[in-house]
Amino acid sequence: MGNGILSYLKGGSWVSGEEMANSQGISRAAVWKQIQALRAKGYYIESSTNKGYRLVREPDLLDAGALRQALKTKVVGRDIYYYPEVGSTNDTARKLAWSCDDGTVVVAETQREGKGRLSRSWYSPPGGLWISVILKPRIALAQAYRINMAASVAVARTLSFLYGIKATIKWPNDILVNDRKICGILMEISAEVDRIDYAIVGIGLNANVAAKNFPTDWKAISLLEELGSKVSRTDLAQSLLEELENAYLSIGSKENYEDWCRLSATLGKRVRIASHDGDLEGLAESLSEDGALMLRLPGETRRILAGDCIHLSLSEQRPDQDQSSNHV
Amino acid sequence: MGNGILSYLKGGSWVSGEEMANSQGISRAAVWKQIQALRAKGYYIESSTNKGYRLVREPDLLDAGALRQALKTKVVGRDIYYYPEVGSTNDTARKLAWSCDDGTVVVAETQREGKGRLSRSWYSPPGGLWISVILKPRIALAQAYRINMAASVAVARTLSFLYGIKATIKWPNDILVNDRKICGILMEISAEVDRIDYAIVGIGLNANVAAKNFPTDWKAISLLEELGSKVSRTDLAQSLLEELENAYLSIGSKENYEDWCRLSATLGKRVRIASHDGDLEGLAESLSEDGALMLRLPGETRRILAGDCIHLSLSEQRPDQDQSSNHV
Repeated sequence: MGNGILSYLKGGSWVSGEEMANSQGISRAAVWKQIQALRAKGYYIESSTNKGYRLVREPDLLDAGALRQALKTKVVGRDIYYYPEVGSTNDTARKLAWSCDDGTVVVAETQREGKGRLSRSWYSPPGGLWISVILKPRIALAQAYRINMAASVAVARTLSFLYGIKATIKWPNDILVNDRKICGILMEISAEVDRIDYAIVGIGLNANVAAKNFPTDWKAISLLEELGSKVSRTDLAQSLLEELENAYLSIGSKENYEDWCRLSATLGKRVRIASHDGDLEGLAESLSEDGALMLRLPGETRRILAGDCIHLSLSEQRPDQDQSSNHV
Repeated sequence: MGNGILSYLKGGSWVSGEEMANSQGISRAAVWKQIQALRAKGYYIESSTNKGYRLVREPDLLDAGALRQALKTKVVGRDIYYYPEVGSTNDTARKLAWSCDDGTVVVAETQREGKGRLSRSWYSPPGGLWISVILKPRIALAQAYRINMAASVAVARTLSFLYGIKATIKWPNDILVNDRKICGILMEISAEVDRIDYAIVGIGLNANVAAKNFPTDWKAISLLEELGSKVSRTDLAQSLLEELENAYLSIGSKENYEDWCRLSATLGKRVRIASHDGDLEGLAESLSEDGALMLRLPGETRRILAGDCIHLSLSEQRPDQDQSSNHV
């Protein structure tokens, strides 16, 4: 069943059921059925006994067909799996990963069990961009950080390019706008000792998500909040996948590393690193080419490969470490 | 059903069915049933209408119960899953990996689809030791090589300790005896950008495998061939898991690294490295603490993170590179 009545409704004014029935040569009951089908797809249609029907709002769905056609990529997005809802796009991607091609994409309108790093949950309502890309780079396991680096700069470049937003990268894998998290990246790897079988790059981007809906303890922000209006998530997905392809095809490049440093939100800040071995506080002095954070401590510079990074405001700094740069 | 008749047979001489039936207070048909049950477990029992039954050979099975009891470990082998046959122990381990404890072991008498590195098949007949250990080390992804290093030294130490065999480590993950492969290690990792979820260390050790059964193109050797007699695979598994625990609990230690260098079969050899980027021939000059092979080429020393390593005999060396150490 097509939906011939949609063109009538798109005018935005009231149309009587009778008029649509006559023009389409169908019964009024059939018109009612089509209205119901449109509503199920997310069209918000008002109805009135006297005036008929009126389209109030079109659904804000990702158009995977349009995305596929518009994409100017060779690898990323060759195959796109689109779902209205999944547990998590990374979990769905993992099921595809062994048999699918490099660059396969999984995208969903919403995730029931969106995941962040370290098994944390990730709030994933409709309106966000929840997308996972399966990559099969021919790099050694020890170079896996390059994938994360490529994905981080791709997200930041996309936001800058599309909306002129200054997005920064919080080590190791969040994207911030105005010091609040707009995007998280969850990379999952399957590998042998010297070979990566596949990497799943999960990107959760708060696009058209109302700020009032974030969990109250989240220092999060959305594009909707930053820009004041909704964006086309189809356009957003297209640019993001194109930037990701650029960064991926030049994986390990000087450009990716330099942008990763240039766009860092962490560099130069006092930070607290929470890791297996306890907490460390110091100055984020530099980022090394192999993805490590070089942390300036009293008397030494420590190489940090793993851990949670908290940017400290002045009031959060421990008094005993406050002046550490003078201790050396 | 117990197997009371086994103690009669263990003497090794002929015992009549009637005698066993009488002594056990069971029918001769029940004796026959017990014989059949023993045969199904791998006991080789001769029968003769006149003389009765005679035990010719006991089965060479791993005794998982005895192994569990004998193990002096805290982590490795706390849980042991034993199977007569699996697809591959690594595949079985992967299904357990998310929910099981650190140190869980999967062991099988035979693998239908044993796997080597780079998706190669691994010949896994009965008599070998096919074992996978699920480890959950609290190390960064960039330190994953430490797991491989620990497993390699554990295997070499075990063979030296139990049998006085000089076993060496071929970079990155084979164990050699007399320059022939006695053991392969297949490490598979699941990880996030800075955290290892789990590592599966698959160890395939040619224990009681007749050399004539190896695929003809394999430069392989077995303990049976080297020692001239069968070993107890239960004892072997015990020592191996104990050595693995030692090496695992001191993961990243100087001892592991130094043994890894000291036991190297590759150091000082001319080698060919086959990798994504093509072949390289040079001198294996040193092994770095982060698992890389430092390859001496004319004019430079290249850091090799990944690739197949072939030890060259003099006749295999390319004439143009033969004298490269004089070229510098």
